[in-house]
Amino acid sequence: MRININRNDKVALYIQIKNQIRDMIYSKRLPLDYVLPSERELAKMLKVNRSTVNKAYEELKAEGLINSDVGRGTYVAFCNEDELIDKSNNCKKHLYWDEIYNESSKNNYDDVMSKIMKTKDNGKMISFAGGIPSPSSFPKDEFERVQINLSKSKLEDMFLHSPVDGNIELKKEIKKLMLNREVRVATSNIMITSGSQQGLDLVARTFVNSNDVILVEEPTFFGAIQLFQTLGAKVVGVPIDEAGIRVDVLEYLINKLKPKFIYSIPNFQNPTGITMSLERRYELMKIVEKHGIPIIEDDPYGEIRYEGDELPSLKALDKNGYVVYLSTFSKVISLGLRVGWIVAPERVINKLSLFKQLTDLHVNTLSQHMICEFLRQGYYESHIKKIRKEYLLKRDLMIKELEKNFKEIEFYKPQGGFYLWCKFPDSIDLNLLLEKSIKNGVNYIPSNFFFTKNDMKSKFIRLNFTYPGNEEIIIGMNRLRKSLDEIYRL
Amino acid sequence: MRININRNDKVALYIQIKNQIRDMIYSKRLPLDYVLPSERELAKMLKVNRSTVNKAYEELKAEGLINSDVGRGTYVAFCNEDELIDKSNNCKKHLYWDEIYNESSKNNYDDVMSKIMKTKDNGKMISFAGGIPSPSSFPKDEFERVQINLSKSKLEDMFLHSPVDGNIELKKEIKKLMLNREVRVATSNIMITSGSQQGLDLVARTFVNSNDVILVEEPTFFGAIQLFQTLGAKVVGVPIDEAGIRVDVLEYLINKLKPKFIYSIPNFQNPTGITMSLERRYELMKIVEKHGIPIIEDDPYGEIRYEGDELPSLKALDKNGYVVYLSTFSKVISLGLRVGWIVAPERVINKLSLFKQLTDLHVNTLSQHMICEFLRQGYYESHIKKIRKEYLLKRDLMIKELEKNFKEIEFYKPQGGFYLWCKFPDSIDLNLLLEKSIKNGVNYIPSNFFFTKNDMKSKFIRLNFTYPGNEEIIIGMNRLRKSLDEIYRL
Repeated sequence: MRININRNDKVALYIQIKNQIRDMIYSKRLPLDYVLPSERELAKMLKVNRSTVNKAYEELKAEGLINSDVGRGTYVAFCNEDELIDKSNNCKKHLYWDEIYNESSKNNYDDVMSKIMKTKDNGKMISFAGGIPSPSSFPKDEFERVQINLSKSKLEDMFLHSPVDGNIELKKEIKKLMLNREVRVATSNIMITSGSQQGLDLVARTFVNSNDVILVEEPTFFGAIQLFQTLGAKVVGVPIDEAGIRVDVLEYLINKLKPKFIYSIPNFQNPTGITMSLERRYELMKIVEKHGIPIIEDDPYGEIRYEGDELPSLKALDKNGYVVYLSTFSKVISLGLRVGWIVAPERVINKLSLFKQLTDLHVNTLSQHMICEFLRQGYYESHIKKIRKEYLLKRDLMIKELEKNFKEIEFYKPQGGFYLWCKFPDSIDLNLLLEKSIKNGVNYIPSNFFFTKNDMKSKFIRLNFTYPGNEEIIIGMNRLRKSLDEIYRL
Repeated sequence: MRININRNDKVALYIQIKNQIRDMIYSKRLPLDYVLPSERELAKMLKVNRSTVNKAYEELKAEGLINSDVGRGTYVAFCNEDELIDKSNNCKKHLYWDEIYNESSKNNYDDVMSKIMKTKDNGKMISFAGGIPSPSSFPKDEFERVQINLSKSKLEDMFLHSPVDGNIELKKEIKKLMLNREVRVATSNIMITSGSQQGLDLVARTFVNSNDVILVEEPTFFGAIQLFQTLGAKVVGVPIDEAGIRVDVLEYLINKLKPKFIYSIPNFQNPTGITMSLERRYELMKIVEKHGIPIIEDDPYGEIRYEGDELPSLKALDKNGYVVYLSTFSKVISLGLRVGWIVAPERVINKLSLFKQLTDLHVNTLSQHMICEFLRQGYYESHIKKIRKEYLLKRDLMIKELEKNFKEIEFYKPQGGFYLWCKFPDSIDLNLLLEKSIKNGVNYIPSNFFFTKNDMKSKFIRLNFTYPGNEEIIIGMNRLRKSLDEIYRL
């Protein structure tokens, strides 16, 4: 509702207001029962005294056009007779949205996850749940310099539209970055996405038909399982050992199920932290080439290695175009900027772009410029070194606390990445533990989300060590200990 | 590939480089045929002389580990005997991605559209094709002040993750904005999206099942038609007249086809520019309530009115929760920031959030802060006034040029929005006209994209008047005239 008042007009302000609202009511531009702004709100909007609005409203009430109720506020009370007849004849019905959701949203997500994720925003909760970089590791000084540099170029350019497949200058920087990962590509093999989750979404939407089988490492990233399932795919798990995906089982399942593709996280796998061995990588590539099955390689954590040799990505071993590679700046620079990328054969990039256009046109222009400038200034390498050091200390602190406080827990020590994957004794009820933990002010993700079948029998939890501060790690582990003790005492 | 060199080491730099590459080749971390960085690139990466790298490469070549080809560069030439046998036995095959796209991407998009959109980036082309605001209207001074204000708060906060459904402060500002559109809602009824295209995508993915019928105004926004079709929906057009959607036909089609929902653009409809009359809005709401069919109301242009009375949105007339309302800052502030929003019943917002999380987690944090600060400082209203003035002049200029140059074209004069919808005589071959126009340096979107059936028989084109400058409008119209004349001369 917009009211135009003219202070030069001889007509008093309150009458101007009254007349315009009256006109809008008579012409039905304001419908019956429409709630008007409060006197205070309207006075503020129009920059007039509240008493002016009060006078206008009082006159409209006297004319029977509006009415006031405690709770409901001031609302339009006038309607013509046709409508009154209409109203008495037709019992208006509310729409029941729940009945019209489609198949995929009917089985979308578990309430527990929303509950876990929402508790993060509570300041008192210590969160080991997210896959989030440390806020204190944010490269503040570097970004201040990035902003200064960008402010020298045309501000308008930062707010204009971008190409669907991404800013070409940023692609050139990513091309250089990929050389560090043993992958030599052209910019036409690269597409910029709103984080690696969007990369996965675009790939899934482009390839997955309802009832397609997708093979994943089991356990694996819950966001991938849920996404594939909402698209109607049958997600089938392949077990992993300490060298990564079990290629013997994989080959058996390929023969049996003819999957559409394989989804793999070779580096510091989420949630287990396991790194696929070099030998296993070669074996995996050999199998997919033999059977003609593509791989979606998800590599958000590859740069965050604390120890051991760097290994080539699957994409680096991929001579015949079987691998679509996903990565992101979310885990190393900023989650909030939402910038990731896809590396794939050019014709696949072109196809993905068509979906990108329908999904959200393009990635935020300003973010792309900021990340591009960050890379161009050479801040990336030194920043990676810094966070490796910081996260290594956090990993070791959390391991120390685990070993000190929990004789009953087994865990895998990852060479990199964000997570500790912890196994509890069979006797522990993990549902109950989560409940107690949240009550005691610590959260994490229980293992059932990481399995293709929502099966609470597996007794693991995933702990993130990068987001919490050192002190929070210690306090959080004590809270977890306390929660476990409460269960023993039952 | 990362090589660590130690300048304090007694071992010569070139030997350090050689040894590390050799180790990587022997251990198969660098696979057979892997292309190494060029000497120049590696020298730059390691900050050493090119001659140092040259020496290392020469020795590796002498050992038979690498090789150089003109064109191909320097590549790994070593592999063990097992592999050689493997290679001769197995004829490696490339993956044919085209064969594995899913049903929806098989019929995704038309090549012509990509061609039209891509020509925009060519500096010499005058574009009447996009739905893009004028770059000169960008509120530069305001955003400089926004940046100064934001720089006073914690920089880290701008780069952290945001809630899936959006920043609460921005939601509060949008809540106020909605009051101007006669809609009173709680922040829990609002969700922030990456532009209104993403709003549409989330809604479609939450509700549409394969083979659902969706009714749309015909013609309508091509991005909606294509999106619904890729989800497997049957998109059926309802004709519009100068008062908007034909409610008589609508009711007939509802009875006949039982649609999942109706997609409507009531204000300055894309592409026709038609505004749905107040009476028609009431009739439409009555019909959907009678039949229990929800409406997706798309309102990207509503604020950009040049003349005539403001009308309430369908959402404002929606007392029983039948309308999901979509809007965006893309057409009024910045397309590049990618910020739009959805207004819907709270339980629908919650459901949409689950998809948002799987799609791309959340909208860029920095963009949300910037738009929020822009609104909070009160820049929005004055900016809207400014662009209304600017675009009104452009609309009238394009109309003047149309009337002067094209006696054979009929068009609709819109009260607001971005487009002129122009009808050509039946004798004109519009495919040929587009070809000539692009050759002559002007582009636009031909009508077939806006119809549910890709039917070149309809003789319209959509011209955008907000993006080009005044001079470009004049030159572009001359180029269009020239293209038409070339057709007459055939």
